[in-house]
Amino acid sequence: MSEIQRYAAIVEYNGRCFHGWQKQKHHNNELSVQAALEAAISLVANHPVDVACAGRTDAGVHATRQVIHFDSHARRSNYGWIMGINTNSPPEVSIQWLEPVSADFHARFKAKARCYRYFINNAPYRQALQHDQMTWWKYPLDADRMHEAAQALLGTHDFSAFRAKDCQAKTPIKTMHRIGVKRWGNLIMLELEASAFLYHMVRNIVGVLLPIGEGHKPVEWMADVLASQSRVAAGITAPGDGLHFVGVRYPEEFAIPSDPWGPMMIEPLLAL
Amino acid sequence: MSEIQRYAAIVEYNGRCFHGWQKQKHHNNELSVQAALEAAISLVANHPVDVACAGRTDAGVHATRQVIHFDSHARRSNYGWIMGINTNSPPEVSIQWLEPVSADFHARFKAKARCYRYFINNAPYRQALQHDQMTWWKYPLDADRMHEAAQALLGTHDFSAFRAKDCQAKTPIKTMHRIGVKRWGNLIMLELEASAFLYHMVRNIVGVLLPIGEGHKPVEWMADVLASQSRVAAGITAPGDGLHFVGVRYPEEFAIPSDPWGPMMIEPLLAL
Repeated sequence: MSEIQRYAAIVEYNGRCFHGWQKQKHHNNELSVQAALEAAISLVANHPVDVACAGRTDAGVHATRQVIHFDSHARRSNYGWIMGINTNSPPEVSIQWLEPVSADFHARFKAKARCYRYFINNAPYRQALQHDQMTWWKYPLDADRMHEAAQALLGTHDFSAFRAKDCQAKTPIKTMHRIGVKRWGNLIMLELEASAFLYHMVRNIVGVLLPIGEGHKPVEWMADVLASQSRVAAGITAPGDGLHFVGVRYPEEFAIPSDPWGPMMIEPLLAL
Repeated sequence: MSEIQRYAAIVEYNGRCFHGWQKQKHHNNELSVQAALEAAISLVANHPVDVACAGRTDAGVHATRQVIHFDSHARRSNYGWIMGINTNSPPEVSIQWLEPVSADFHARFKAKARCYRYFINNAPYRQALQHDQMTWWKYPLDADRMHEAAQALLGTHDFSAFRAKDCQAKTPIKTMHRIGVKRWGNLIMLELEASAFLYHMVRNIVGVLLPIGEGHKPVEWMADVLASQSRVAAGITAPGDGLHFVGVRYPEEFAIPSDPWGPMMIEPLLAL
């Protein structure tokens, strides 16, 4: 038997089709992304494989660049791994990139920053075609006000006000590297890059941005909520549908592609 | 009972979730777009309603601006109709616009032109998030060659070479007003506007563009296929997944919005 090799991979999935990332102990295993991937990778490796990810996503939350790692003593070409895994996975999950990495790589613990995007369809009537990939908000939103308010979150803060009850993070202190809100027609996109995110943190930030965008709350409310360090001072937890996990940054030595990407149909155009 | 009024509406749907537009006589009625809409509109109208559309789409084919009409003696505000119909429809279908129109409007027979878009994900590995909205083609395609070849279809021609066997159109002679192929990153989009389309016409045109884009066939092959008027001279029927019905043009007197639209996530950016 050959030596154990660690592999890193980038995974895309439609969260609508899974009960979140994590394997469920008491539910149908096949409906989590992790279970689907472990089943497919184990088939290709021809031995049982455990998979770890950079950021566990909730039910309904999508990913274009989730990063995973796994160990195997099986020898396959990168192309062989990818095609084998994708052939054995449901259509709503697929590997986009895979390389052998050093044994000290860890998808979660070596991540320096994560990037999310949140899409809002700000239109009078609900969408149908991509209804599971955007959150519908029918009341007019001022994206510039939302952008201005969001800037209060830049830097290192205690994000307890945006932390959901069951959060398992060791500390609520995180660093927001980048945050912005942009509008194209009816489509509003929030993009955030932070050292790490607390449970429901992005969705709770959106819950504060929405009443600010509507004009019901002042721009300064975001700073007040942050300073309160209290979940009850914030707003709703916005739906998971609009949330996309789009990238992870690692130390350069691991050579993992880390540019945010997705959703596919918007990305090539953002680059114009 | 008040007088019968005709209504026109614009409908968006994800074709993946339906067995095409048309009601099925021998299958589960609820799985066609037409049956879903007739059920919802009949509920809001409080009487049975028949719905006609501009262009019947196949299973798997999407629409962002399908146009329909129906007659009712019920009196509702435009907003009341739309919200009522959308509330009673599956999430994968929704009305985006609705107005009363004159009795001589007909969604199908008054249409002067229809616009389709076909999306190809030209990437080495299959996509997951929007896998039902794009066709995956892993061999590199030259979009400029495809664009050049497509120009042979401009104007009025006998399109029999692109006509599927069960086509019910009275004549294979149609006028192509506009056709173009563009690439952004991995995404390739074909856009076509014609007086009308034969059964499988767009998918059969794509079937000819693919080998031209790959370089297996010369640019001139498109003109040869068209001139042959023979289906066997053409290529494969490309999958329905990538096909989107995005607009219909009517005489101005009917005041139906007719700009092509969609899919949502690409549209605001195309306008930049």
